[in-house]
Amino acid sequence: MGKIKLSSISTRAPENFEKKETKDKLQKTLDNLDELQNLLYAEHKHSVLVVLQGLDASGKDGTIRSVFGKLNPQGVTVKSFKVPTPEEAAHDFLWRVHQHAPAKGMIQVFNRSHYEDILVTRVHKFCDDETAYKRMKSINDFEELLQYHNNTHILKFYLHISREEQQERLKERTKDPGKMWKYNEQDFKEAKLWNDYMKAYEDCFENCDTIPWTIVPSDQNWYKEYIIAKQLHDLLVSLDMHYPGLKK
Amino acid sequence: MGKIKLSSISTRAPENFEKKETKDKLQKTLDNLDELQNLLYAEHKHSVLVVLQGLDASGKDGTIRSVFGKLNPQGVTVKSFKVPTPEEAAHDFLWRVHQHAPAKGMIQVFNRSHYEDILVTRVHKFCDDETAYKRMKSINDFEELLQYHNNTHILKFYLHISREEQQERLKERTKDPGKMWKYNEQDFKEAKLWNDYMKAYEDCFENCDTIPWTIVPSDQNWYKEYIIAKQLHDLLVSLDMHYPGLKK
Repeated sequence: MGKIKLSSISTRAPENFEKKETKDKLQKTLDNLDELQNLLYAEHKHSVLVVLQGLDASGKDGTIRSVFGKLNPQGVTVKSFKVPTPEEAAHDFLWRVHQHAPAKGMIQVFNRSHYEDILVTRVHKFCDDETAYKRMKSINDFEELLQYHNNTHILKFYLHISREEQQERLKERTKDPGKMWKYNEQDFKEAKLWNDYMKAYEDCFENCDTIPWTIVPSDQNWYKEYIIAKQLHDLLVSLDMHYPGLKK
Repeated sequence: MGKIKLSSISTRAPENFEKKETKDKLQKTLDNLDELQNLLYAEHKHSVLVVLQGLDASGKDGTIRSVFGKLNPQGVTVKSFKVPTPEEAAHDFLWRVHQHAPAKGMIQVFNRSHYEDILVTRVHKFCDDETAYKRMKSINDFEELLQYHNNTHILKFYLHISREEQQERLKERTKDPGKMWKYNEQDFKEAKLWNDYMKAYEDCFENCDTIPWTIVPSDQNWYKEYIIAKQLHDLLVSLDMHYPGLKK
């Protein structure tokens, strides 16, 4: 996709999108996904990997609840990647990720992912530039492996929110009793590293675009959810799937 | 290594190697390995992957018993790759392999490996040429990943036996009560595909040589065992390892 500048991309829905109408379209898309997911599972030929990346409070958890939570749980699994355990850290950075690659027929959602190894680690200087570029090369190779050798279709979403929206959501976590469990005092410190994160993401988009990223304007949840559900829907339609016949 | 012709490489020890003397050298090498393996484990910085490939009866199991069986089992693990399970087959071919990549400090032995996916599968036409070359590319990427991102040093051995020696060993399995458990009536059928296997191996050596292969003359076990133990020994020496100091 070439060099992109996140600050020049809107974090809000385009003018021609209206909330009520978009929510109706989201619902219809989710209804259609039900049958498409069933086909994916039955055909056992393709698999889907959905990578959700974004800063704290960008809406990753909400997306999982509102979009993927509507699918048949037998065919969708979610993996959240946290700080590596000692066992994980004793391996290459893709070792723990590969274990959660989707089997044929499955949709796998990554809440954060192997991309953290060139994002948070870079911002905090745990990972120097040389290592970062070697990791990006290995990430491209890895995604090619999944795509070519297991028909894994990878959808990569960056949930793009504004700095103001992030601050507002983080503050809400300190006040709303239903959201306090998400609050981490580290979050406000991380938020101060905004520019470093933007730079790391922009570099990631430029170098890991063998499989393209979608920058999802995410200040409004209804638009974000629609875009993600629609992409998954359109991907599954494009696969031209068929129910298998009787086994001979 | 360029195109190599297996039929032009001897399957026997060079003239200047004598059995008794070589066995003594093997014993000394194994003695030295004890301390080196301890260092590898304690330093927790490097890891070693040993790939053992070869036709039926080429001596893979014997190598494991006679060489790796002498090491501290806490620091060495062996994984035998068989026909993929349905769960494994529902993933890319490297998925099950990556799970057994060595952690830092460990020596992992593969009895057969990801290379079978471009060998037996190719000989039996489960895998066409286009897929085979794509797999070889992915194998090179994968080995680079382990090497660069986890200091994994990979030793790849092809146990090179003659067709006559193979026939003799297979026949022995039908007669020696201590070896009958290894006999599989399929083995003699596979042995007839000798030329196809040679071709598949030669193509593999040519295209997967980012990390070089060692062709080990293996008609005589004592020579084979010495060569493999010696390579492991020399690799570990070259790592210039040190015991870590007190944690601060």
